[in-house]
Amino acid sequence: MASSTNPAVPQGAPSEPPKTCKVILADTIAKKMLAEVQSTLSAIQLPRRPTLSAFLANDDPHAYQYAEWSKKTCEEQGFSFNLVKVDKESLEEAIIAANNDPDVDGILVYYPIWPADQSHQDRYIQETVALSKDVEGLCHTHLFNMYHNIRFLDPPSNLKKSILPCTPLAIVKALEHLQIYNPILAYGNRLYGKTITVINRSEVNGRPLAALLANDGATVYSVDITGVQLFTRGSGIKALRHQVVDRPDLSLSDVLPLSDVVIGGVPAEKFKVPTELLREGAVCINFSSFRNFDGPAVKEKASIYVPSIGKVTIAVLLRNLVRLIANSPRQEGTSDDAQKAREGAFKDD
Amino acid sequence: MASSTNPAVPQGAPSEPPKTCKVILADTIAKKMLAEVQSTLSAIQLPRRPTLSAFLANDDPHAYQYAEWSKKTCEEQGFSFNLVKVDKESLEEAIIAANNDPDVDGILVYYPIWPADQSHQDRYIQETVALSKDVEGLCHTHLFNMYHNIRFLDPPSNLKKSILPCTPLAIVKALEHLQIYNPILAYGNRLYGKTITVINRSEVNGRPLAALLANDGATVYSVDITGVQLFTRGSGIKALRHQVVDRPDLSLSDVLPLSDVVIGGVPAEKFKVPTELLREGAVCINFSSFRNFDGPAVKEKASIYVPSIGKVTIAVLLRNLVRLIANSPRQEGTSDDAQKAREGAFKDD
Repeated sequence: MASSTNPAVPQGAPSEPPKTCKVILADTIAKKMLAEVQSTLSAIQLPRRPTLSAFLANDDPHAYQYAEWSKKTCEEQGFSFNLVKVDKESLEEAIIAANNDPDVDGILVYYPIWPADQSHQDRYIQETVALSKDVEGLCHTHLFNMYHNIRFLDPPSNLKKSILPCTPLAIVKALEHLQIYNPILAYGNRLYGKTITVINRSEVNGRPLAALLANDGATVYSVDITGVQLFTRGSGIKALRHQVVDRPDLSLSDVLPLSDVVIGGVPAEKFKVPTELLREGAVCINFSSFRNFDGPAVKEKASIYVPSIGKVTIAVLLRNLVRLIANSPRQEGTSDDAQKAREGAFKDD
Repeated sequence: MASSTNPAVPQGAPSEPPKTCKVILADTIAKKMLAEVQSTLSAIQLPRRPTLSAFLANDDPHAYQYAEWSKKTCEEQGFSFNLVKVDKESLEEAIIAANNDPDVDGILVYYPIWPADQSHQDRYIQETVALSKDVEGLCHTHLFNMYHNIRFLDPPSNLKKSILPCTPLAIVKALEHLQIYNPILAYGNRLYGKTITVINRSEVNGRPLAALLANDGATVYSVDITGVQLFTRGSGIKALRHQVVDRPDLSLSDVLPLSDVVIGGVPAEKFKVPTELLREGAVCINFSSFRNFDGPAVKEKASIYVPSIGKVTIAVLLRNLVRLIANSPRQEGTSDDAQKAREGAFKDD
């Protein structure tokens, strides 16, 4: 029930009503995950610092800033982070060298590199990264497994977990932290009954995110400038992939008032989610480098507001890296501890 | 993410899809509460078994059955339960005797006693029960405090908790267990953003329930045969009472599709909530002695279904009784343990 009332407070006294919106910072969510990463890492007993090579081949200041943050967190957490600035033309060679370097455990590339009309070149680069070092989960095998809700690389032994893309998984982890995933429901069904709008349908973020959420039972409206698509799991808890239909009859203004959760990922300063169309008490999460929600106004309407997700994404990156190490042949048949770490790393998602 | 897929399962194999609906039995929720009751009780150190007198003055077979269940649970839990069958005309005298009996700690009456057109007589009986023994929270002071969101009987010391009606509080406890109350949100705001339909607006059940839920931030449609009322808290987390408006423009069929949670309390065999109007993934709770939901069908549509609440109500009854004992002058200034028990009993709601 609500907080206690003090009947001694005079009626009509000019007092600000307490805020109803809870602002949750990415840091809070990230800290919990980083502690798990540390515990898995200490069990793995790698004889050197786990190493991530990150390739920056664009001029995006946000990517550079994000790389700097990643480096800082990595080093604080006992990882090595090599930031390699390289021009577009040398990128493929540089990645191949890292694929073959036994001292590199994971490879990260900042996208987009080429302009939108040449995005197939980004796709080509994603496929160049070795599957065993694909810390971002963007190789075809990882993506295929995600879209088909297949969770292991090595059925039927099921010891090597497939890697999920960092930002979509970070948002899933945030939704778990916010208890939007209802732990009372069966695993794989914990978003059943929830309606979620994801504004962004990029191949690295919005589309995989919509698929993950639909696979867990949500009704997902995926919105971009081309229109609205509806992602659902279909009926029952099925292992089959989610279903997608175009909904040309719907626009962002139709789906916002229906949504329990609104996730903004529009990479544009000017775009703002229209606050007046949000459901009273909606949960709002921004994963764009720009603020997709109008800060002061959204806090008057939302029940929970997560203004950024970057720190959680970095924590997921390290989590994925530790999983790659646990998956690798170096770790096989070594010690009981390593086996336990591998199992621990496979505990969830 | 969803449960793991085994790609070896042949496509199109005739297998039942796993059920998406989780059926939660009242017993599960009640057990947790009874453990708390035991721990508070052992700290109170009452020199005799806590005693409840229950007055049955109607011929309702459901009331009799409920009384039998209550007696069984009470005795299992180390309480004494005197079931007193009495005719309507002798009821008031019998209650007054119990009010004055120092060996009776709490008084319970089964309602309704008089027919609907004489319900003022039920109301009179509720007021006859001494406030200090009102285990059902139906005396005016308790009701007033509930409707005004005032939580203590003795401001400003705030040591004696006001008692809340058993069935409404049982449903609140069920919603907490089901994580519909989001613990991430501030206390008193944990239903913010939720839409709830309560079908029943009786003075002992549906109306107080709608008020409690609205006080905690939900948008509540309260439905009975006279129509729909909307209960809300107003804006902000305010200590003021909830607001109620008639909504003659709405019917049950309008509000069901909007509702995250549907609570049925219609005391009639024939009434069924129309399953086809429920939101996919709704949470459905029945507190009527009759099944307000069509069992097999609701499990195809709901995410969570609670078919009955009676056992939770009995657990709340014992919890309220222990609070009355902790509130009583006998317990004041005795031992540190008793003081701790009192504080423990005041921990939440």
